[in-house]
Amino acid sequence: MAKILVLHGPNLNLLGSREPHIYGHLTLVDINTQLAAQAQAAGHELVWFQSNAEHELVGRIQQARDDGTALILFNPAAFTHTSIALRDALAAVAVPFIEVHLSNVHAREPFRHHSYLSDLAIGVICGFGGDSYRLALEAAIHRLQPAATA
Amino acid sequence: MAKILVLHGPNLNLLGSREPHIYGHLTLVDINTQLAAQAQAAGHELVWFQSNAEHELVGRIQQARDDGTALILFNPAAFTHTSIALRDALAAVAVPFIEVHLSNVHAREPFRHHSYLSDLAIGVICGFGGDSYRLALEAAIHRLQPAATA
Amino acid sequence: MAKILVLHGPNLNLLGSREPHIYGHLTLVDINTQLAAQAQAAGHELVWFQSNAEHELVGRIQQARDDGTALILFNPAAFTHTSIALRDALAAVAVPFIEVHLSNVHAREPFRHHSYLSDLAIGVICGFGGDSYRLALEAAIHRLQPAATA
Amino acid sequence: MAKILVLHGPNLNLLGSREPHIYGHLTLVDINTQLAAQAQAAGHELVWFQSNAEHELVGRIQQARDDGTALILFNPAAFTHTSIALRDALAAVAVPFIEVHLSNVHAREPFRHHSYLSDLAIGVICGFGGDSYRLALEAAIHRLQPAATA
Amino acid sequence: MAKILVLHGPNLNLLGSREPHIYGHLTLVDINTQLAAQAQAAGHELVWFQSNAEHELVGRIQQARDDGTALILFNPAAFTHTSIALRDALAAVAVPFIEVHLSNVHAREPFRHHSYLSDLAIGVICGFGGDSYRLALEAAIHRLQPAATA
Amino acid sequence: MAKILVLHGPNLNLLGSREPHIYGHLTLVDINTQLAAQAQAAGHELVWFQSNAEHELVGRIQQARDDGTALILFNPAAFTHTSIALRDALAAVAVPFIEVHLSNVHAREPFRHHSYLSDLAIGVICGFGGDSYRLALEAAIHRLQPAATA
Amino acid sequence: MAKILVLHGPNLNLLGSREPHIYGHLTLVDINTQLAAQAQAAGHELVWFQSNAEHELVGRIQQARDDGTALILFNPAAFTHTSIALRDALAAVAVPFIEVHLSNVHAREPFRHHSYLSDLAIGVICGFGGDSYRLALEAAIHRLQPAATA
Amino acid sequence: MAKILVLHGPNLNLLGSREPHIYGHLTLVDINTQLAAQAQAAGHELVWFQSNAEHELVGRIQQARDDGTALILFNPAAFTHTSIALRDALAAVAVPFIEVHLSNVHAREPFRHHSYLSDLAIGVICGFGGDSYRLALEAAIHRLQPAATA
Amino acid sequence: MAKILVLHGPNLNLLGSREPHIYGHLTLVDINTQLAAQAQAAGHELVWFQSNAEHELVGRIQQARDDGTALILFNPAAFTHTSIALRDALAAVAVPFIEVHLSNVHAREPFRHHSYLSDLAIGVICGFGGDSYRLALEAAIHRLQPAATA
Amino acid sequence: MAKILVLHGPNLNLLGSREPHIYGHLTLVDINTQLAAQAQAAGHELVWFQSNAEHELVGRIQQARDDGTALILFNPAAFTHTSIALRDALAAVAVPFIEVHLSNVHAREPFRHHSYLSDLAIGVICGFGGDSYRLALEAAIHRLQPAATA
Amino acid sequence: MAKILVLHGPNLNLLGSREPHIYGHLTLVDINTQLAAQAQAAGHELVWFQSNAEHELVGRIQQARDDGTALILFNPAAFTHTSIALRDALAAVAVPFIEVHLSNVHAREPFRHHSYLSDLAIGVICGFGGDSYRLALEAAIHRLQPAATA
Amino acid sequence: MAKILVLHGPNLNLLGSREPHIYGHLTLVDINTQLAAQAQAAGHELVWFQSNAEHELVGRIQQARDDGTALILFNPAAFTHTSIALRDALAAVAVPFIEVHLSNVHAREPFRHHSYLSDLAIGVICGFGGDSYRLALEAAIHRLQPAATA
Repeated sequence: MAKILVLHGPNLNLLGSREPHIYGHLTLVDINTQLAAQAQAAGHELVWFQSNAEHELVGRIQQARDDGTALILFNPAAFTHTSIALRDALAAVAVPFIEVHLSNVHAREPFRHHSYLSDLAIGVICGFGGDSYRLALEAAIHRLQPAATA
Repeated sequence: MAKILVLHGPNLNLLGSREPHIYGHLTLVDINTQLAAQAQAAGHELVWFQSNAEHELVGRIQQARDDGTALILFNPAAFTHTSIALRDALAAVAVPFIEVHLSNVHAREPFRHHSYLSDLAIGVICGFGGDSYRLALEAAIHRLQPAATA
Repeated sequence: MAKILVLHGPNLNLLGSREPHIYGHLTLVDINTQLAAQAQAAGHELVWFQSNAEHELVGRIQQARDDGTALILFNPAAFTHTSIALRDALAAVAVPFIEVHLSNVHAREPFRHHSYLSDLAIGVICGFGGDSYRLALEAAIHRLQPAATA
Repeated sequence: MAKILVLHGPNLNLLGSREPHIYGHLTLVDINTQLAAQAQAAGHELVWFQSNAEHELVGRIQQARDDGTALILFNPAAFTHTSIALRDALAAVAVPFIEVHLSNVHAREPFRHHSYLSDLAIGVICGFGGDSYRLALEAAIHRLQPAATA
Repeated sequence: MAKILVLHGPNLNLLGSREPHIYGHLTLVDINTQLAAQAQAAGHELVWFQSNAEHELVGRIQQARDDGTALILFNPAAFTHTSIALRDALAAVAVPFIEVHLSNVHAREPFRHHSYLSDLAIGVICGFGGDSYRLALEAAIHRLQPAATA
Repeated sequence: MAKILVLHGPNLNLLGSREPHIYGHLTLVDINTQLAAQAQAAGHELVWFQSNAEHELVGRIQQARDDGTALILFNPAAFTHTSIALRDALAAVAVPFIEVHLSNVHAREPFRHHSYLSDLAIGVICGFGGDSYRLALEAAIHRLQPAATA
Repeated sequence: MAKILVLHGPNLNLLGSREPHIYGHLTLVDINTQLAAQAQAAGHELVWFQSNAEHELVGRIQQARDDGTALILFNPAAFTHTSIALRDALAAVAVPFIEVHLSNVHAREPFRHHSYLSDLAIGVICGFGGDSYRLALEAAIHRLQPAATA
Repeated sequence: MAKILVLHGPNLNLLGSREPHIYGHLTLVDINTQLAAQAQAAGHELVWFQSNAEHELVGRIQQARDDGTALILFNPAAFTHTSIALRDALAAVAVPFIEVHLSNVHAREPFRHHSYLSDLAIGVICGFGGDSYRLALEAAIHRLQPAATA
Repeated sequence: MAKILVLHGPNLNLLGSREPHIYGHLTLVDINTQLAAQAQAAGHELVWFQSNAEHELVGRIQQARDDGTALILFNPAAFTHTSIALRDALAAVAVPFIEVHLSNVHAREPFRHHSYLSDLAIGVICGFGGDSYRLALEAAIHRLQPAATA
Repeated sequence: MAKILVLHGPNLNLLGSREPHIYGHLTLVDINTQLAAQAQAAGHELVWFQSNAEHELVGRIQQARDDGTALILFNPAAFTHTSIALRDALAAVAVPFIEVHLSNVHAREPFRHHSYLSDLAIGVICGFGGDSYRLALEAAIHRLQPAATA
Repeated sequence: MAKILVLHGPNLNLLGSREPHIYGHLTLVDINTQLAAQAQAAGHELVWFQSNAEHELVGRIQQARDDGTALILFNPAAFTHTSIALRDALAAVAVPFIEVHLSNVHAREPFRHHSYLSDLAIGVICGFGGDSYRLALEAAIHRLQPAATA
Repeated sequence: MAKILVLHGPNLNLLGSREPHIYGHLTLVDINTQLAAQAQAAGHELVWFQSNAEHELVGRIQQARDDGTALILFNPAAFTHTSIALRDALAAVAVPFIEVHLSNVHAREPFRHHSYLSDLAIGVICGFGGDSYRLALEAAIHRLQPAATA
């Protein structure tokens, strides 16, 4: 049994109310609730944190080193493309993480095609809306299993 | 019930025998067998095709338009970065597809950071080894469901 | 009658005391006071907010969606060139905004020639010192009028 | 009391008849007439000139040095991005000028994001349709006042 | 029956006398005469205009909006690569046009590989010497026919 | 009397069924049939070949050196932008060729603006749909005539 | 006797516990304590501040203008490469500063080779681990001396 | 005895009155008069032409082909960096020319470091103020001599 | 005694007949025959394969892993610059290879200056015509010897 | 006790006489004398060498491998940005070195922002005038100590 | 009366024997002799120096500061494009210089289009073969005259 | 019988002692001795020269023009990427040369991927350690033979 942290970056607090024709009607609370259930069903604990502030996300990642977090699901949103501080925090704590995006960033503006985090991540999942999180949690759960058939 | 096509690009026939310390011991047959079972459990049919030849992949994609394929899981491997013909085939048949990579392409050579296909895809999943396929199939199954909670 | 929000980015709290030979002796309070009077004369309400913190500006923009703000005048200062989070916030709330700069950014360092916000703005006004704000408010008032001669 | 010159670049003679859903129904004559009234109300004289020919605009700028022009409002249109001759003329006569654009050039094709003139201008105003001219004239009038509170 | 305008850009007045080993011995008058006959045979009227001056070409394009021109054949010569004013004029009048070049611009200096006009054109024909015009007129006549077999 | 080869690149076998609102209802067979008639009327023989496989196109070009082909009309489709092997084949056999595109490649994605073939071609025709082929054949027939008025 | 401020950027609070094989076992408290002693020995006062938040560092720099700080030693860490707001703050307060890095940034990822601050600094010291700070303080003390042999 | 043409580009009509601390007090008439005398002393005829209009310069160059001009001294000023039409005119008439600049273009803005003409010129002389013309005429006279010691 | 594979890429089947003034009169059969003799003289077996098809070359490389090939001499021709699939195949089978080119690729078009294979190769030999192969085989034989003087 | 080599690159022999308002009145001899005393005080031997010739500096570095040099302080001056031979020499002898600059190279021309040596250095110190050397020697002495508190 | 130094860079010792169809039959001695006579006629002394070694040219420039050299004519040849050490030497001694090239560098390889020296020079003369030197000396003599008509 | 010159660039004097795990234990003397024997066996004379100084290599190349050198084997080492003077010398003497590298430069730092010499060379051999020289001499001997089977 492991502890999984879900981190949501800036503006994701608006989910559900913002552009529902694009992002659907799920709110961040809905998503977190579903993820917690999914984790529990697999025998894991899931906690989550959202912030529009880079330093709060940096602080939460630093804390993950000491509170026994086994794996992070991280949707860095706009910070994906601008924050080296988050990269440094993730590299320093050395907790494995999966990068998640709601939208298909490759189909958006060119400045969204580069990530400061992807090369440090286990993997990246993007483009499936709220389902991106569920898939990332699936991947995390799979990875946290004792390596049987790998 | 829907028909799902899994397409594997060049050199993926070597899976399981090639660099097992990186890619694990699963062969392509293992992966396809597991995916077929996963699809069947969800009430879908799954067929697959591997080729080292770009034109055979183009042909298989063209055929998908007429054989009732509902969705494609595509690991284009090296062709990700060089084939506009595959892009054009996917755009022409207009069958939705998910791009899949075993490795985390963002952590490899710079020429693997650009894809000719990603902006046309539903989404992209990379970095989880053989599990990338399973997650992509999860995403596909989720998408093929009647939109309930979306 | 409409509600107009004036947002000031990092270091603008120093106005008046910082390099007066360049920026003049007007403080931020002076500017805000003048703008409030100008808005009132046109029958509008004007509120303002300054912060050196990106997340506080993001939060203030999010709040504008719900407090009836009709238009934002935004001098993003240094964040103009680095903040995708502010861009995303502005895009999410969809409140129209005008980008304002005291100095002529085109005559300064090359990294000030690109803005992450301009293509989403109604328009951009730069180079007129404190008068840039007054002109932007003029433009806002003009736009908030019932379209007569447009 | 000062003399203000309004210069309009290529294709602006089509205003009002060209793409009215974008630019509105104001013709160039309408704009010039309104500007003249606005200038007169502030005690200034306003003259204007439109040409599709770069050399005529160069000539008009050269003439401004000798006819007592205090300030130029310049919408260089397409020449913004291609004419070093206009830049040289403006630098040679050393009459201060304000750059004006009807549309938000930052939201258009990439080749419209660079201007050969902006770094020499007092300031730039773009994106407000015909109102861009009015704001620029406001800025000019403000600047031509005896410096009181600046 | 339609009116077709043939526009020739700078230095094309030299045709026939300039580098005949490259461009052949046809003069511009020869080409225009042949095109007029070709148009007449198809029941259309053809007029032409050559200028070394960008503003005269801009003016002629503006005039085309009002004189019933159905289609323009345009060899912009050197202006292909430098004139945004011609692009703006063509976009403003919205008369469909075909871009024509005598030489194969792709086999010449790199700065001739980019055109400010091509993306607005119906199509582009280059490399066939004087025959490029004839083919472009063929294309125009074909397009002006009632759409039968498309 | 000469032999003319028409080569069609990848995905062109889908013509007529694929995106008819863009490309019209003509199938590749229709186009080839019309071209054959057009060639015959001018006293020439026309053969054609389509393939999604680069090596088959390379092979067909190599064969053209020995089977008396006088000229090639080539629509390389996606291979335009990626195939140096086709360039090398065309350079090796030294059969003159005309590059043809259905769509206006200059109005599409940036990676379609560069061709590995254009600088070796006689000329390029793009943007006229199926009519691009007819015009290219016109150009070929004109060129195969005894040089009279050139 | 002068007041010296030592500023530490994001993630430097982890020093000593993070990757000790690289950065050694000195904590940030150790470093600050040693620096305070070094300053005191030279007759100066030393204060320090660490934050993961850009706006708190901006605020601390602004405060330095008013609290008599003579010189700043600044290790901006990840903000070196992303923060124009810190650059603007340093330029506004005009307190001389020395840029310090623990690691040799030139031997790391390319995005660490550019600094938004270096051209405004007195000088830069990097690559000596915790000793970088000591050397920077040496430089500061030397500079604060009455210019004797300079 | 030969005919030499001196061409002056845009804004050079202002010489003598414009920024005399940079360019000296010589007017264009002074320069032309001195050059005419210098040419006459060497037994040559010198004519000159200034225009702010690209098309007039193109026209004058075209005329040079037919009026027996042996060599052109050309100061293209701003057109150096923007005019392909002038390049084409010079290439078409094939009259040898020397490129002349008053200022040292290499010490000015980056966009002045590229010339569309230099690679076609005999040589380039820049940076000597009005003396650049005299040196270019020297070079021309030397070149027009019967080749003795070369 | 070892098995050496010689691989020839696209269009090399034309050798001897194609541009003999450049490549000489040796056919591919001549070269292969000479190489076989050279290998035999050194006690090694040599087999060869040519294809215009990327996938056939990929397949032949994959086969080399299982058929005891000790070393590959590879002239990838046009695929040098475009094929990541060949790179991946070579990396997967991990058979050492030497890259060979007939011509000096550095003296040809810029797009031939980059190779997707060179950094994986033992070494590269180019520019010696058919002799490039002989030298590469020399290098291979030298390398296959028991390391004596290295 | 260790041997330290101080290397000075081209034009540094002019120190003290050249631009004293920038570099101060210290000559190279002064600097070397002070450094020798500083080293001696710490129980080390210091030798120095200046040359305008790249090959002499290469030779001196090669010699350092054999004469027991423990560490090099290197101010490569102009060679910083152009000499791969010096980089290769330093890599070959594997003597640790510290890169030193008098001026803040980041505040000078862009071509001074790249160094061929920095990524191989222990660290870099720039911008402190003659004091840069003293600080570098401090760093060297610190590093040569038995690792106590490191 | 002034002292003028003529500096010739690498490979210029071959003049007259090297590619005479390009550079003519004048040797370096011929050129120097003619320049000495030209200088003497104007009442000046001329000395010259050629070297293939960058450091010898650096040394000769440093010496010029102390031997009363009033002006340098410098043909840096290949070092034009690679030597920052020569730039630094010229900047340090602050003796004015004129950059000279035999060939038109703008018509040669792209790497010859950039000079590390031009922006520091009085002016540049290129493309006139041996006559480039004579013209540069003319310019120097003109500049050394008492400023009369300037 | 011909004279062959082997030129070794900077730092190659260290061969054998420098990084033997990479370059093997052969010294430069060993290599030269072996090459001399190889040349003699083929009836040719071989001389060699090593220098760390660019100007000495330039001088040795110039001398080759006059001493009957038939061909040069050149390992320019670091100068490959920085020396235009060596390029000019080789172009001036027009003695054919082969470029040789011990290491595979394509597998090293990006700045080693460009050579100022390769496009002038007969061919390039890299990556075979000391054997690169032997192969290059083989190529040279082959080329110096009377053209029999070429």
